[in-house]
Amino acid sequence: MDKLLCPGFLTSSCTAGLKKHGVPDLGIIYSTVPATAAGVFTKNLVKAAPVILDMKRLKSGKAQAIIVNSGNANCCTAKQGMVDALEMTKYAASSLNIDKELVLVASTGVIGLPLAIDKIKKAVPGLVKNLSKESFTDLAKAIMTTDKFHKTVSEQQNINGKPFTITAIAKGAGMICPDMATMLCFICTDIKASPDFLKKSLLHANDRSFNTITVDGDTSTNDSVIIMANGVSGICMDNNKSAKLFQKTLDDVLIKLAKMIVRDGEGATKLVKINICNANSDKDAKKIANTIANSNLVKTAFFGEDANWGRIIAAAGRSKALMDPDKVKIFFDDILIVENGAGCGESSELKANKVLKLPEFTITVDIGIGTGKATVLTCDLTLEYIKINADYRT
Amino acid sequence: MDKLLCPGFLTSSCTAGLKKHGVPDLGIIYSTVPATAAGVFTKNLVKAAPVILDMKRLKSGKAQAIIVNSGNANCCTAKQGMVDALEMTKYAASSLNIDKELVLVASTGVIGLPLAIDKIKKAVPGLVKNLSKESFTDLAKAIMTTDKFHKTVSEQQNINGKPFTITAIAKGAGMICPDMATMLCFICTDIKASPDFLKKSLLHANDRSFNTITVDGDTSTNDSVIIMANGVSGICMDNNKSAKLFQKTLDDVLIKLAKMIVRDGEGATKLVKINICNANSDKDAKKIANTIANSNLVKTAFFGEDANWGRIIAAAGRSKALMDPDKVKIFFDDILIVENGAGCGESSELKANKVLKLPEFTITVDIGIGTGKATVLTCDLTLEYIKINADYRT
Repeated sequence: MDKLLCPGFLTSSCTAGLKKHGVPDLGIIYSTVPATAAGVFTKNLVKAAPVILDMKRLKSGKAQAIIVNSGNANCCTAKQGMVDALEMTKYAASSLNIDKELVLVASTGVIGLPLAIDKIKKAVPGLVKNLSKESFTDLAKAIMTTDKFHKTVSEQQNINGKPFTITAIAKGAGMICPDMATMLCFICTDIKASPDFLKKSLLHANDRSFNTITVDGDTSTNDSVIIMANGVSGICMDNNKSAKLFQKTLDDVLIKLAKMIVRDGEGATKLVKINICNANSDKDAKKIANTIANSNLVKTAFFGEDANWGRIIAAAGRSKALMDPDKVKIFFDDILIVENGAGCGESSELKANKVLKLPEFTITVDIGIGTGKATVLTCDLTLEYIKINADYRT
Repeated sequence: MDKLLCPGFLTSSCTAGLKKHGVPDLGIIYSTVPATAAGVFTKNLVKAAPVILDMKRLKSGKAQAIIVNSGNANCCTAKQGMVDALEMTKYAASSLNIDKELVLVASTGVIGLPLAIDKIKKAVPGLVKNLSKESFTDLAKAIMTTDKFHKTVSEQQNINGKPFTITAIAKGAGMICPDMATMLCFICTDIKASPDFLKKSLLHANDRSFNTITVDGDTSTNDSVIIMANGVSGICMDNNKSAKLFQKTLDDVLIKLAKMIVRDGEGATKLVKINICNANSDKDAKKIANTIANSNLVKTAFFGEDANWGRIIAAAGRSKALMDPDKVKIFFDDILIVENGAGCGESSELKANKVLKLPEFTITVDIGIGTGKATVLTCDLTLEYIKINADYRT
């Protein structure tokens, strides 16, 4: 029984009937005072209505509530989609008795079906009535789609003896594959900060967390990461020391959530860190890491617990990064399995096969031509993945 | 019982013992007279030794034989790899009593294991002894790896009452996914042509066939398409009419083989044409087509026979091509399912679901902003794919 809290924030969730099986599918996050806010969103050209609305509203740098539903992405829903997104924020604002411009909205689920807006309208008053300090975990459950477990992280730190808190929830399963399910993340903190500071901090943490589990730009139509800072701790980000500690804590919270998302990768049985070093540049290293991390052949070999390093080096070779195959080394954890572009023999393969039986391991590819490096988290591609995604809507 | 022939060409195949289960794994194609020759090869930076050797030898524009093995890719095999590739051509040249510079070599199978060159050495004399006009089909079988069926096409045309022949064999399963098994294709023809003419014709046909079933540059370490023209028909490519007819025939032969490869996609149950029209440019259309054709979410939805067009438009949206979602139309065969970026309702989805039950269908995405177009063939992503690729080496 975790009791996640964040001073000055209340949450609530309920079953509005958007999902099929009567499980929770609607929620609200509410700050008791107007907060500064920032967000990062999908780079997909096809953006869901709630994403478009939030991007517009966050230009003010302010927000006080987020209403979120699962079961329907409200994406590719024509003009009605924006009408419905606006309605959602209006219902919430009206029940919360705040300016609707301070309400953000997020949706996740199937693309292309009209939102059952009446069900949401009916549910909002009860939702607001049940707002509570202690229901972050329930909200994290209500935003799940193909997730097998809910994802929450809360951390507290002290600055000059005064505590501040970051409490965050996320949903998403298997964003390591570029176009899988939507990722949502909502971060509440009680620090006092300007919108600019918040945006900069969020981008920094996002680059070190969610952006290491997906290919740049290869995002779903609804991906949203939103942070609200309500200032109730009284701790200002007005000096280097406090700003640094906040950044470190925020990075840490998002990295933990990102790992949970990979571990919950649709059907995944293994969490694999792809670690590229000594590439021609960081950019090249990232290209190689992403190509390996998204290779179906590599990912099925992980599932088969087969140290088939040929697939790894072949993926690196087609990544469009500079590479001299004869200089490449590959390690499975600390087992050297490829040197000078050729295998190290049967005994090292046998050892590497043991590494592959672990639930978590690291593949290091040393390109041997520079100092560029990158790390990407991925998972295996399994029979279960196909079952989940072939049957998703049925 | 097809009797594939090509005048002046002999082939042979046998079991050298490179594969585990005693099935044929070695073969030779031999032209009774030196032929002009050309090839196109993988763009992967990691190139197998036989690929590197062939690229070098084909600079002469001449060849008389190809020795090919399955069961081992002779890739990432350090310096020994090139030694072994050279040995293979030497054995063949010596038994055939021709210049070794006129012998090309191809290998396909597992990466990173040393080639059992002694087994090949022992097998070559018998192979040469058994050369026959009528064994193209057996050779096509001997080069298979994960292929479920062998792939051969032969066409004959007449120019001024004189016939010429193109007979080709290929192997490969599921190149629609960028990094799957190696593709090999060997084309024999009895026309008389210069190396330059041959190279140009091969590039043209390759662009319209094998390059429409894979992402540009995303090729395996061993991909090779080689053509030999021995001139025994006496038909010269010295005028527009004959050159055009030859090109058309060659395009046709390679397109047929490419379709066979997709139909044999590892574990595939459906052949799907992704047809993009009215994009901003042909290049953009190709980006969109490839992103859709390689999306795991789209491919599993095909397998699940679910008209989940949201995944198709979302893949298009992350392809980095210009697009205005509100202008997009999507058809499943002739069923309009998306218009102005939104769904056309349940009745059209029900009709589209019926299309998805067919073994072959076309998805047309009309981007609605220009005149660019592209077509890519793909297949579904199935449970069987995972099983094949998780167990490949075991």
